[in-house]
This record gives sequence, C-alpha cells and structure tokens, in this order.
Amino acid sequence: MTEYLQLATCDYPEHVPADRPAIYAKQQRELGLTYVRLAEFAWSRMEPRQGEFDWVWLDEAIDAYQAGGLKVVLCTPTPTPPAWLICAHPEILPYDEQGRVREFGSRRHYDFASPIYREHSRRITRAIAERYGEHPAVVGWQTDNEWACHNTGRSYGGASAAAFPAWLEAKYGSLEQLNTAWGNVFWSMEYTDWAQIKPPILLVTEPNPSHVLDYYRFCSSLIASFQAEQVAILRERSPGRFVTHNFMIFESGFDHYEVAKGLDFVSWDNYPTGMLEFFAPSGQSDDIKTHFARTGHPDLIGFNHDLYRGMLKGKEGLGRQGAGTPSGPWVMEQQCGQVNWAPFNPLPARGAVQLWTAQAWAHGVDVVSYFRWRAATMAQEVMHSGLLRHDETPDRGYEEVKALKLSDFPLGEVPAKVALLHDYDSLWLYDAQKHSASMSYWTQTVTYYMALRSLGLDVDILHSDADLSGYKVVVAPALTLISAEQARQFSALAASGTKLVFGPRTAFRTPGGETWSEGQFGPMSDLIGAKLLQYDSLRPGLTQSVKYGEGTFAATDWAESYRLSGARALASYVGGPLDTQAAVIRKGHVTVIGAHQQELIGTVLSEILMNVGISVETLPDGVRLSRRAGKTLLQNWNPHPVKWQGRLLAPVSFTVLDA
Amino acid sequence: MTEYLQLATCDYPEHVPADRPAIYAKQQRELGLTYVRLAEFAWSRMEPRQGEFDWVWLDEAIDAYQAGGLKVVLCTPTPTPPAWLICAHPEILPYDEQGRVREFGSRRHYDFASPIYREHSRRITRAIAERYGEHPAVVGWQTDNEWACHNTGRSYGGASAAAFPAWLEAKYGSLEQLNTAWGNVFWSMEYTDWAQIKPPILLVTEPNPSHVLDYYRFCSSLIASFQAEQVAILRERSPGRFVTHNFMIFESGFDHYEVAKGLDFVSWDNYPTGMLEFFAPSGQSDDIKTHFARTGHPDLIGFNHDLYRGMLKGKEGLGRQGAGTPSGPWVMEQQCGQVNWAPFNPLPARGAVQLWTAQAWAHGVDVVSYFRWRAATMAQEVMHSGLLRHDETPDRGYEEVKALKLSDFPLGEVPAKVALLHDYDSLWLYDAQKHSASMSYWTQTVTYYMALRSLGLDVDILHSDADLSGYKVVVAPALTLISAEQARQFSALAASGTKLVFGPRTAFRTPGGETWSEGQFGPMSDLIGAKLLQYDSLRPGLTQSVKYGEGTFAATDWAESYRLSGARALASYVGGPLDTQAAVIRKGHVTVIGAHQQELIGTVLSEILMNVGISVETLPDGVRLSRRAGKTLLQNWNPHPVKWQGRLLAPVSFTVLDA
Amino acid sequence: MTEYLQLATCDYPEHVPADRPAIYAKQQRELGLTYVRLAEFAWSRMEPRQGEFDWVWLDEAIDAYQAGGLKVVLCTPTPTPPAWLICAHPEILPYDEQGRVREFGSRRHYDFASPIYREHSRRITRAIAERYGEHPAVVGWQTDNEWACHNTGRSYGGASAAAFPAWLEAKYGSLEQLNTAWGNVFWSMEYTDWAQIKPPILLVTEPNPSHVLDYYRFCSSLIASFQAEQVAILRERSPGRFVTHNFMIFESGFDHYEVAKGLDFVSWDNYPTGMLEFFAPSGQSDDIKTHFARTGHPDLIGFNHDLYRGMLKGKEGLGRQGAGTPSGPWVMEQQCGQVNWAPFNPLPARGAVQLWTAQAWAHGVDVVSYFRWRAATMAQEVMHSGLLRHDETPDRGYEEVKALKLSDFPLGEVPAKVALLHDYDSLWLYDAQKHSASMSYWTQTVTYYMALRSLGLDVDILHSDADLSGYKVVVAPALTLISAEQARQFSALAASGTKLVFGPRTAFRTPGGETWSEGQFGPMSDLIGAKLLQYDSLRPGLTQSVKYGEGTFAATDWAESYRLSGARALASYVGGPLDTQAAVIRKGHVTVIGAHQQELIGTVLSEILMNVGISVETLPDGVRLSRRAGKTLLQNWNPHPVKWQGRLLAPVSFTVLDA
Repeated sequence: MTEYLQLATCDYPEHVPADRPAIYAKQQRELGLTYVRLAEFAWSRMEPRQGEFDWVWLDEAIDAYQAGGLKVVLCTPTPTPPAWLICAHPEILPYDEQGRVREFGSRRHYDFASPIYREHSRRITRAIAERYGEHPAVVGWQTDNEWACHNTGRSYGGASAAAFPAWLEAKYGSLEQLNTAWGNVFWSMEYTDWAQIKPPILLVTEPNPSHVLDYYRFCSSLIASFQAEQVAILRERSPGRFVTHNFMIFESGFDHYEVAKGLDFVSWDNYPTGMLEFFAPSGQSDDIKTHFARTGHPDLIGFNHDLYRGMLKGKEGLGRQGAGTPSGPWVMEQQCGQVNWAPFNPLPARGAVQLWTAQAWAHGVDVVSYFRWRAATMAQEVMHSGLLRHDETPDRGYEEVKALKLSDFPLGEVPAKVALLHDYDSLWLYDAQKHSASMSYWTQTVTYYMALRSLGLDVDILHSDADLSGYKVVVAPALTLISAEQARQFSALAASGTKLVFGPRTAFRTPGGETWSEGQFGPMSDLIGAKLLQYDSLRPGLTQSVKYGEGTFAATDWAESYRLSGARALASYVGGPLDTQAAVIRKGHVTVIGAHQQELIGTVLSEILMNVGISVETLPDGVRLSRRAGKTLLQNWNPHPVKWQGRLLAPVSFTVLDA
Repeated sequence: MTEYLQLATCDYPEHVPADRPAIYAKQQRELGLTYVRLAEFAWSRMEPRQGEFDWVWLDEAIDAYQAGGLKVVLCTPTPTPPAWLICAHPEILPYDEQGRVREFGSRRHYDFASPIYREHSRRITRAIAERYGEHPAVVGWQTDNEWACHNTGRSYGGASAAAFPAWLEAKYGSLEQLNTAWGNVFWSMEYTDWAQIKPPILLVTEPNPSHVLDYYRFCSSLIASFQAEQVAILRERSPGRFVTHNFMIFESGFDHYEVAKGLDFVSWDNYPTGMLEFFAPSGQSDDIKTHFARTGHPDLIGFNHDLYRGMLKGKEGLGRQGAGTPSGPWVMEQQCGQVNWAPFNPLPARGAVQLWTAQAWAHGVDVVSYFRWRAATMAQEVMHSGLLRHDETPDRGYEEVKALKLSDFPLGEVPAKVALLHDYDSLWLYDAQKHSASMSYWTQTVTYYMALRSLGLDVDILHSDADLSGYKVVVAPALTLISAEQARQFSALAASGTKLVFGPRTAFRTPGGETWSEGQFGPMSDLIGAKLLQYDSLRPGLTQSVKYGEGTFAATDWAESYRLSGARALASYVGGPLDTQAAVIRKGHVTVIGAHQQELIGTVLSEILMNVGISVETLPDGVRLSRRAGKTLLQNWNPHPVKWQGRLLAPVSFTVLDA
Repeated sequence: MTEYLQLATCDYPEHVPADRPAIYAKQQRELGLTYVRLAEFAWSRMEPRQGEFDWVWLDEAIDAYQAGGLKVVLCTPTPTPPAWLICAHPEILPYDEQGRVREFGSRRHYDFASPIYREHSRRITRAIAERYGEHPAVVGWQTDNEWACHNTGRSYGGASAAAFPAWLEAKYGSLEQLNTAWGNVFWSMEYTDWAQIKPPILLVTEPNPSHVLDYYRFCSSLIASFQAEQVAILRERSPGRFVTHNFMIFESGFDHYEVAKGLDFVSWDNYPTGMLEFFAPSGQSDDIKTHFARTGHPDLIGFNHDLYRGMLKGKEGLGRQGAGTPSGPWVMEQQCGQVNWAPFNPLPARGAVQLWTAQAWAHGVDVVSYFRWRAATMAQEVMHSGLLRHDETPDRGYEEVKALKLSDFPLGEVPAKVALLHDYDSLWLYDAQKHSASMSYWTQTVTYYMALRSLGLDVDILHSDADLSGYKVVVAPALTLISAEQARQFSALAASGTKLVFGPRTAFRTPGGETWSEGQFGPMSDLIGAKLLQYDSLRPGLTQSVKYGEGTFAATDWAESYRLSGARALASYVGGPLDTQAAVIRKGHVTVIGAHQQELIGTVLSEILMNVGISVETLPDGVRLSRRAGKTLLQNWNPHPVKWQGRLLAPVSFTVLDA
C-alpha cells in the first residue's frame, strides 16, 4: 500500500487555557494533520518545584489530542532547566566565548558536561518516559530541542572546561603525544601538565587550530553522550516508539553524524526565509536575499533536506522504532508564515508554504510538522507566526496547508545518482583558518551543491566515510581534512570506476589539524597525480581568469593551481600570478577543480555526468527539479513567472509530474 | 507687557582663572544674555574631601555674575561623584549591559539605586541649597545633568540588580502573578523565588520582552525617585526658584513623563548636527546626513522641541516657581558651533545658530542657553566649540548671537491644531521586538511627524494619556502598547468627533508586554472596525505597492493589512503577498495607515486635515513653517536658495512673518 | 670596498626533524643568503621545565648553519613564556582593554610590568647569552619579537595597573600637579589618593585624553626598560655582537624612539599585502586595496623604511656592535609569498618579492631577511608562505630571490633633502580625539608622505626633536602636540632659512594634552603669524573647495582656516562655511596647509621645493623613484605597464639607474 506524506504541527497546551487542546485537536484533524509535537519546553510545568510533579495538564492535553485523532510526539524538556534548578545549582550554566556565564532567562542555559545537570536530565527523562512511555497516543520522542542553537554547542568554561583535560588524556595518553599532535612547539605552547589546558578563548591572538579542532570534537562528544543517556532511558521505558531529534539549518556546533547515531531517524527545523538572511553564500548575496526574500533559496533548503536524509544512510537497520509511523526524516518544525529572528522577516509569498512542503516531500521527507499551531501571545516569540493567528483565526499558512493534496506526494526513494561529501572535521578546520573573509566551508560546499542542482540533479549528501558504492559520480567540495584511510577509500572508489570530483583545499590538512608535510594533497597525491602549486585568496574586486574549453570564467574568492605528476590540465589560468598554471586537472577518474566559480564548476560537472550517462538539464535561476517515488517535482521559486520547455511556470509554484 | 525670547549660556568658573567670571559676565551681558548656568560638574571643587567644603570660588563667581547683571541657574553636581566618594564606596558604581562595572574617570558613574549614593546626593544637594538657595542672583535650579546620557539610565548589576526583586514584589504581589504577567511558562522561565530574578542581560538568546519592559520601568522609577529627593530639598531650601532638568535628544533610557513630574518646566539640550549623525531616520539616511550636515534636520530638532513643550501639558499649575523667569521650556544647552561627539562633526553653516535659536522660539522655547561660553581647554571636550574660542576670542556663534534681534521673538502660544501621541512603554516594547533591522519606534513616529511638518502644520507632542480635547486631529503613529483604559479614552475622543489616525502595530500589545489574545487591535478592535490580517517586514530592496486614489506608493520597511469588520478600505495593496488587501482603513473618525511610506502618510493626513478645515501647505524639502504668538517663522534649512510662493529664501535662513 | 645588500631568512630548527638544518643551510647558502635568524619562540624547547635546560638541539642547529656558511642572529625567546611559567605565575598574564585576562595559548601573553616575568626574562636572556654569546657563528641578537603586536603594548590591569600610580607620582610629585596637568577639574575627576588612578578603561564615556596620554607614555616606558634589561645582559655576555629588534608596521603601541635607544640599529618586519589591507589611508581605500592587492602600496612600505632608517639618526655612534655586519637597518622579516593574517591574503604578483627587496635596499636597508624559510606545517601559521613550501619545494619567492643580482644594490647613503617629522605623543593625542571617523594621525601623515613621494623626492622621517640642520625643507604633517621648547627649535630653524611646512592641527595641544590657552598655534603663533579661525570635520560627501593659484581643490575629511597676524594667505576657501577664509598661509619660511587634499599638498610642496632648488618630477600613480649610493631605483608598482619619459615600465618591475 502506498504511503503518502503526512503532516503535523507543534503545539503548546501549557500556553493556552485548558479547554483548547480539545478544540485544537479537532481543527488539526480537519486540516489533515496526523501528529502533534508537545512539551519540549514545559519542564517548569511538569515539575514546578524539585520532586513535585504536575502531570494533570499534560495528561489531559494528550488525552484531548488522542480523542481528536492525533498521534503525539513527546519531547524531553531539557532545553529549559527551570529557575529552581539553576538557583540550586548555578554551576549548570554554560560560558560564552568571552568567558562569561550565560544566565537564566531564555533557553539552552546549560553545560552539557555538568554532572549535576546530567543527573537531572536523566531524572526528568525517566519521569516523563515512565508517565507516557507506553501511552497509546504517544508514537515517538524528540530529545531536547535544536542542539547547539544560539551557539550553545560549546561552553567555554565551567563544567566543560573542567572536563576537557581528561578527554584529551584519554585521547592522547601523554602530553608528549598531545604536544606533537597539536604542533605545540610552535610559539612554545607545549604543556607540561594536563591541568594547564583550557578552552581556546580569550587568547592574545588566534588559537592553534589543532586546539580548536579538539575542543570542537570534545564538545561534540558531550552532546552525543548527553543525548545517549536520554535515548537509553527512552528505549527502556517507551518501547516501540521512535526517538529522533530536530537538528538545525547549517549548524556547525557539533558533528551531526556522531550525534545522530542511535536515533531512529533525524528531523530538522526548516525556516527558509530566516535561513536566507543568515546563510546566503557570499558574492552578490544581498541581491539573492532580496530576490528570494519571500521563499528562501531553494538550494539552501534542499541542501539541508539532502543532508539530513543522508545522515543515517547505511544505519537504517539500527533500532528503527515507531510502529505505524513513516521512517523519516521529518521536518519537525516547518515555517508556515513569517519568522521572528532574522534581521528582516518578510511575509512568505503566496504558495510558499505549499512549495516548501512539496519540496520537503521530494527531497525525502516523510512528515512535515508546521511550527506552530497558534502564534504565541507571550514572551520571546510573539512575532513568529503559526497556522493560527494570535486570535485563533486561520493564518495564510493554514489555508495553504488545507489546499494541499497529500495523494500527490507518495513516499519512496529519491533516485540520487550523485553523492556530495561533507564532514564536520573539515568544516571546523577550514573555518578555523579561512584565509579569506569571503570564503567558508559552507560557501564552498553549497556552491558545488548549487551547481549540481542547477543541472537538474538529485543529490545525496553523505559523510566522507560513507559507503559510496553505487554512485557513478562522487563530489567532495571541501574535504580539507583527510586521513590516510580516507585516501585509501577514495583510491579504491576511483579504481572501481567511480568519478571523483574534488574542490580546492582538498587533502590539505591531517586529522590532527596540521598540513601534510609532503604538501597538499598528502596521501591523495598519487591518486590525483598532482601537488599544490599556489593558492590565492582573492579580495572583492580581484578575479583570476580561467580558460576552459571555449569558455573563460572569472574565479572569485579562491584560486589554486597545481604541479602535475600524472594528471593533465583541463583548464588553465590566464593572466595574473597564476598565468598558464593548471586550474582544473584530471587523472583517470579523478578531477580537481581549483578555481571557485559556480559556472565553471557546473560546466566541468556537466561533462563528467554526461560521460557516465547521467542526463543533465541546465535550469533557469530559481527553477528546480526534484524526484521521488517515480514522480518529478517541477518548481519555480522565482517571484515572477518563468517559461521553461514550453511550460509557463507560475511564480512560487510547483507541479508534480509523472516520472 | 510682551515678553520676548531670552538668552543664556553655560559657564564653568572652576575651569578658568579667578578673574574671569567678572570679565565674562560683562561680555555676556553685552551680548544680550540674561542667565548663566553654573556648577553641574563641580562637586570635587565644592567638597574636595568628604565634609570639607570650599565655597569661596563659587561665592565669588556668583557674585561676579550678579554684579555683571546676570541671573544664575545652579545645578546639583551629582552627575560626577568625586574620586574620594567612589574610592570609599565603590558599590556606587553602575554596571553595563555586559555585566561589567563602569569605572570612575568620566561622568555619570553611579547607580540610581545605590542607598549610599542617594544619601550623598541628598547631602550635597542640601549643602548647595543651603549655601545658595536664597541668594538673590539665583533664580532656579537644574537637577544633575542629562539623565541617562551614555546609556546610564539603567545599571545592570549592583544596587539596581539588588533592588529589582523588591520592586517586582511590590508591583505583582505574588510570583504567580508575575509569572502570568510575563508569560514565563514560555521556555519554562517561571520563577519560584523573587531572588532568582535578575536584570535581563547575558542571556543565551533574547530576553522575554515583558522582563525587559519591567526592568526599564523599574529603572525609570529609580531616576524619578532620585530626582524627587533632590527636588524636595531644593523646594524647601530655595523657595521661589524654579527647578528644571536638561533632558536629551531622543533619549530612550527612562519615561520622561514620569521623571518630569514635579519640575516647574522641562529643558533640553539641542545639538542639531550630532543629532543628525545619530538619529537620521532609516532609508536614504546618508544622503540626508550629508545634505543637512551643517544645520541638522529641521524635523528632528522640531520633534524634540514639541516633545518637551508638551511634556508637562496640563500640569503647568503644579509648583510653578522662579519669579521673573519665563515659564519654559528652555533649551538649556544649545549648540553654537561644532560638537565633538559624533562620528563626524562639521562646522555649522553660516546662519545656523540664528536659525536654531529662531526655531526654538517658534516651537515654544522661552530661553535659549548656549553651550558653552568658552571652549574648554582641557579634558574630554576640548574639540567642542563655545561662544568664545579657546583663546577667548569670539567664535562664529558669538557673532550670530550678537546679530539676533530678540524683539522679533515674542513669547506666546504655539497654535498647534494637531496632537501627535507618544509614550515610552510603547517605545520600549516596540524596540524590544522590532522585527526589522531598519525600523524602530522613533523612525516610525518621526516619519509621521515629518509628514505633518511637510504640510506646514504645528504639532503638539503629547503622552497618550493626555487630555486631547480641543484637538481636531490626533495622530498616534506607534502606540503598540495600549491599555483597555486608553482604548476607552480613544473611543470617547472619536465619539466626540475628533479625527484619530493610527500607524502600524497600533494596539498590538498589552501593558504586560504580551499580545492581545483577541489579536491586534485588542480593545480597540471595535473602534477601528478591523483586525490585523498580515504584517510584513520589508528588507531593503523589497517594497509593497499601495494604491490610494490616483496614486501608487511603494511602502518600505513595514506593511500591514487588515480584515474589515466595520471599517472600509481607503487604500489597498497591489501585487506581492498582500495583493488586494486593505492598507489604509477608516471607520467613522478613525483611520489606520498600515503601510510605511511618508508620502502616503502625508496624503492621507492632508485629506483628513482639510476635511476638518485645517489648511495645509505642501512645503519643499527643508522648508518649514512654525507659528507662535501670532507670528510665523518661515525657514529654509537647505544649503541652497529655494523659491517658494514668490519668495527667494536664502540658504540657511529665516524670516519672521506676521500671522 | 663597496658593500652590497645582503640576504637572510628566518628559520625554525625546532619545527623540523634534526637532519634539516644542515640541508637547509646548504640550500640557503646556494640561494645567496648570509644570515639566519633563530629561536625567538623556542623557550619551551630551551627550558622544558623550570631550570631544566636543553641546548642540544640548538647547539646542533647553530653548528649546522655555521658549517653551511651562515651567520646566526639569535633571539631572546621572551615573546612566548612557556606553560609551566604561566601556570606557576598566572599574574604574569596581561589584561585587555575590556579588563579581561589574556590567556596562554598563542604568544605575547605577558605584562611588561610584571616583576616575576622580568626576573624570568633576565634569567632566560642570561642563560642563552651565556650559552651562545661568544659562539663564533653568532653575530647579533634580536630582543624578543615585535613589541606590541596584537595590541600587547599595553596591559590594562594586573601588574601594569598596579605600577601606574607610582610612575605618575614620580612624574608629577603631587596629586595637585597631576590634577592640574590633566585638567581633572573637568567633570570633577580630581584624585585625592594615588591609588585611585587606574588605566583609562571601562569608563562610562570617553576618557580624559591626558589620562590616556600618560597611560600610553607609562606603557611605552615599560617596554623600554624591559628591553634595556635584556640589552644590558647581552652587552655583557655577548661582546662585539649587535643587538636589534624587529619593529612593526605602523605600530602605535609605544614610542619607538624611546624603545629603540640602546640598540645598535633597528629592524622591521615588512608585510606589504597585509599592511595594505589594514593601513590603506581613508578615501577610496577599497579601490586602492584592490589595485595594489598583489604588491602592497609603495608609499605605505616606503614610509616604514624611511621611518626606521631615521629612527636612530644622530645616535649611530652609540654602541654600534656586530663586527662584519652592515650597520642596518634590516628588514628582519620580509614577506616572500602570501601572508595569513589579513582579511584577504592574495598571492603576490610575479616580481613582487624582487621589487620589495629592491625597494628596501633603495630606502636604506642593508639586510633583507625573508620570513620564513619553510612554510610551517603546524599551528597558527600554516597558511603563511615561506621560501619553501610545506613539502620543501621552492616556492615562487625562492625563485625570485634566486634571480636577484646583489651587485645591483650597493650600500650607501639615501640622499634625502626633505625631512618629514613624526612623534608618538602627537599620534596618541591626535587619535585620542580624532573628531572625524575618517581621519587619523597616520592618514594625515602618510598623505603628506605620499605627496612628497609622488614628486619623486627621497624623504627622511625623523622625530620632531631631531637635529634638522642640513635639510632645506622640513615637513611636519601632524604635530598636534608641541612643547614650547620645540616651538623655539622651529623658530631657530626657520631663522636659519629652512623651509617649514605644517599640516592641520599643528601646535593645537600642550605636552600635557590640553589645548594652548592662547589657542592654536600656541607657542608657534608668532612664528606662523596666524591663529586658528575655524576647523571643519567633513563627513563623506561633504567637501570644502580651496582656490590656489589657478587650481581648485576639493578638501575632504578636514579643513582649517586662519586669522592672519603676519602671515599671508596663499589659498582661500570658496563657498561653504569657510568661504573667503585663509586655507594655506605663509610667513617668511613657514607655510601651513589647513586643508586635507593630497594634490593641493603636492602643489604647495612642489613650489616650495622648486624655490629652494630641489627638483621635482610628478610621477604617475604607482610609479616611484628612490635613490641610494648614487643609484636611482625606478619602480612600477602597477599591475599594468606604464609609459614614462620614453620608457615602457613593465608591470611590477624595477630598474636600477645610475645617478
């Protein structure tokens, strides 16, 4: 039996009079929603004082939703430790990058390393799981909420600072090993006692990138173990329910692959317009921000869908729970009106909520949950929209959801033929030494993704360690940190006939954060058949021309050239300090693109794809194709109509095509 | 007998040799000055060590000014507690928004809540009042100096932090009430002990706006009570003298209406060029800054004149003191050359000092006091001009003052037929959740003021609680916080036939800082005959067209639309997500303008004004009309000549017309 | 016998395997290098734990370099106190301007006033000097590294804060004197106890500039005495070797003239591309940054060469040590590829390394030492280039150095006929009260330097107290702080027939930081024959026209006018508030240029120079002439060819001409 996309919402019975859940549940069901997510911030209502639990309001709410025909996703309320807990144990509070305590009064005010907070996290998780773990309406769990939001992935003092030396000792065994691995001889930074090692903040000048890298890994491990403690309790007390977490947009505060382990599937929170304000790639970013102000940029959203869809790839067999629910991923929070947290918060275009929903489906999402049911009438988020307005009338998003035809959206596979590789170690190290104020790991990576999407391709985003057999083409835009083992895997892959495409700065750095003493590409030098010749950080206004075939492309931001030792140059620089040097090179199945320029990247990729029989279609700006379950979603994200292949695509619209 | 504008200056006998006051007094009198303000920063000279007073220098100075024919305004020297006091009681020091102590070494380094500082404030006030309270030359007092300057309106730690819980307890009675009023259920922010409540700083993310709003109210109440202690002493020890305070430009750090209570009249400090650098409204602000660089913008200045003229409206009967002095307001510090504190500090245009003086008169000011007599030769303000240069020669401003003919400027009423409403609660709440980086309460409010001034109207700026009977038209640009009682008052006003005009976000929020659960316009929904449909935060480059009559206007920054329930649409949006929705609505005497666009606002206002028989004249940019005491001041603020109604207006000039 | 330019490099044997120094030394010698600088950051390798010294690695390295034919410059390793020292004595750490401790983990983490650190500084200096002081390969010493880098010239707490009052007491004797000198009566800032005086940070608003000025002087004196302790030990233990220090680009953190005293010669670290990103003068700075992105700006570099060449002028007789080495100055670190620390780090143009080397020679440098030999493979500077790449292959710079012909570059005098005056007191006071966000002491000073260099002049940059006899023209662009003694010296100089040219704000302030109570030009008023009339801070977009001869110039940023009392106006303002006022004035041999405009400055200077028989040649943008030892270096810094005087100058190139 074909399953279809399902819908949900996030609701807050604790914010409204007690009669509302029953009314809301009825409306939600009429709107076609299946699930409701509850209680991720409700600790002070569950446990108003330590050990005094009040479940009545939540019992009644869950019963009301159940009676209304909705299935419930519950959350551990740990993002918001209550005042009584912080007052009793202020050492729970985290520290910011300026070394200051981050105070009570909003959310996420805790340090993942705090032993006392861990104890309370387990305690409240156990309490809620015991209360509702086997409630028939409860089908799954969300751990906490948006790990690392508001830069809370890392605390720079207190409990985290105290725990860092032991983590290092466990990793390195001896200070000699650590000093060597970090290159601490540089600037006499060698430690003689584990206790001397602090978080890399408030230094006189920049920190050692190896120090940063290990601090980031350490902090990531804290989130993973914090969550694992909750998951273990939920597995025990709430059998047969799924456990997920709602990850965030382009969040860099931890290794998502590490933290996602042990979940049944991942979810993420999709806020397209706010995302665009914050994450538009460099270049003409303000024009892009204005053009797509009311929809967000399709590829920024798509990137996150594809990232989260691929996050547990190959690990689906492990602990899949949640009888009767689709296997994910979910969009746990889907913007359905204006948000409140960007510098500017425009109203979405007419049709945008439908387009976002359809796109989510086409990129592999099984459930879309709108945030939030009714706009909050109090506190920090009153300017954020919901499906209902403050006065409980249906807002624009409601009407768009109502008009959705879910049978247009069958579940099934996304037939991606191209894998794009990503890892957080590379992200952290790249951004620790960007060498250019206009470049970053995300900018470089997303540029390749955009080039692929502009060619009409479906893309799987995978960790660089993932099993890549089955892909004809693998694109690794920015894997600056490469281990010898990864190099061997790439060699094997190339030997098997897979086309590999790498971007600049590939294999520049070791897992410890140094450079390869044999120079870029380190252990991949033979595979690539070249070494780095020069790299060039291009300030705004400075470009470097690349001649490729008949075309000339003006690289911006970054340009690398290569010394060939087996590879051949497909493109060379013209003029400037890199004149005549190799810009794009190939050896066998392996191609490296050294110049940053989206059209050049697209042209190179296009030829590789066509050579292996993957058809490409160069799409107009803002027009996108996405495929799932034998259907194709044709999308126009532009605020104006577009003529394409004999069709007139209405502004901000989509069509589901067969095949 | 007709009274005329009088002039004054601020002088600092403690900065100059002892022979200077006699010389300066003679020059001041020759220049036509009547008053001299003294001693607002002179505590360390009055009391070099605790309990050791030295009055000789001030006795002699006051006697010299008296002998020269000047009347003296004295100040309490509390803006600058001396080193010996801070050293003995460092707990007097205030805290900044980063939680750091603000150190001794400039001025305003005290916390209004400090009990020890309050004791010393009363002690020094009593001492100076006893010494000079009945001195025949002393006609009035200024309390302290520029409340809240340099963000000192609020201390975020120390004494203020310690006093906040008790203030809250007095206001709310119980934590349950407070938690409900603030909506603390959101994000589990519910308190269980008063002592848990801190100033809203150093949080993980944004604070609860209700928390902010009450902290701002609390801090404002501290300034009010701090001043009240001084005023009580001055009233007792210096009978028959006025007490005033010199307020600042667009200062948001406290509720001016609350703090002004108990004064005889208000004064303010008028620095047109620096003001323009800091407060130009958004939009093409840099062009405006350059165009008016040498005069400031007439409406930014005029707004402050009208604000302070209206501040004690209806309270004039209370405690008017100061025999023989005009009843105010005063400009206590009037820029008379370049200032020193803006990013750029251009020289005023020729004629600017005269134009500022004439404008002050025309907007109701009775005394203009130039800051300062002689430019300081030491310390923080050496780059600030005075009437005399460092070398005691007359500077440009001196020559302009000398050429003024005071008999052109008779005192009398400003015949404003329009009231523009303002309140600080709305300002604080609006700016706590601006929803758009380019909008603010002041920008929205001043845009309406500019629209009125562009039509040649005189305007009274009044608190939203003021008695508004007698105005044919009342404009409330940005009253986002509305109480049920205020709603009733507006209804009564409309019922009486007064035309009411509201801007966007009106009546969106409750006095507690939440939204009305019945939605915007809350308790004014019936009066307005509509509810909010959508609001749109427009990023730069994004506009929303509005069709009004024959005209089309491109709204920027903000656009709201409405659901009608009694009102009718006067204008609708065209295109974009608000297409066809109501942009300007009217029910009976009540009009709401939902789109931010100055020309649209002007057009709507113009029609309303003409309908009630108030004549309007659309003025060229930079040309303004202001009326007082049967005269009209025609002003050209442009650096170029303007032809208008058959006249050629010279650059930076004015003419006093009869009627 | 003619001596020629010599070359060197900075190498780090502690960063590489033990076999490398021998290999590197051979390569260095083959490349034509004479010196190698070692060990400025190697404390943790010299003394891994307190009192445990390990000299083996350094013994072997020095021996290897010696065997390879290189002479060694050793450094005191005090920029990087090791972890064991900081852990034992955390009170060594400095404080930043926000009052926070600056932590261990990078470099320069010490307070110059720390008694315990001074003890360790002397101890490690003595240890290394005893070990290598008379080693035959060791020819000289560098103290520490880059004083004040990363804003470490001043610590704002801890040891420095504790020592400040005693320094003040020694300077002023009594608090009365200090209060008078600082003008502390302003804002009641008078101190009653030395212990009340703190560093001028975390104040409510701006600090007293006199307070700032004395804090800067105090901090400068700490660096001077810190270095003097090391120099005394080196003199004693390492006779016959030179002692130098590698100063930085446009560093403002201390008085270089004071700190340079006692050295044999000064060195500096020349990073042209990073310098341009940080120090481009205001105006169209971004265009300049892009145009010269791959070479840096010739005049920014030249300014520093000329500054350091003149730093010990007249003091060469004192303690010249270092048998067999040229007498300096050196470029101790010369960029030879991309740097890593600017917002953008473009690759140098082809030929840039040669051009920088040739320019250094032509401006008086005797030794150019490339930073660094091999690019670091670890830690903070992996993105910084060296002569060798990470993989030890020769990088672009290496090839350029190899192609240099040193016999083109004979040592000898720079025949500068013009002196440009500079002092750090004026810099500090000017920038403490800039009065314009677009102006600064360096911008004003460098503009005059550029004007002179655009006329083809060689320039000596000298302290305002230097012996100036022998110069026909002396240009003092921004001496805002002038003592009565300096005024007398200028009078004597003018009386002797020297042409003096002053820029705006000259002689505005006293040595205490006040203004002259007789007004600008204070004690120079008679000499100049004028007084200040007005000064005008011009915001972007606002200009002030100046008519000079047939030309009209649009002054930006700053314009001053004068009242004449003996001087005559050479140029006057046209229009605006300064209309008809004197802009450029002259009395006898003294000229003052009140308007900021490079072409105007050039025109005025050009006439003065021609009048005294100094020939000028107006050079195209980016083309420069520099003379030394009877040769002329013709340079084209543009990225495009330039035709000039019948020659076609290749992009980024130079020619050495005879005479």
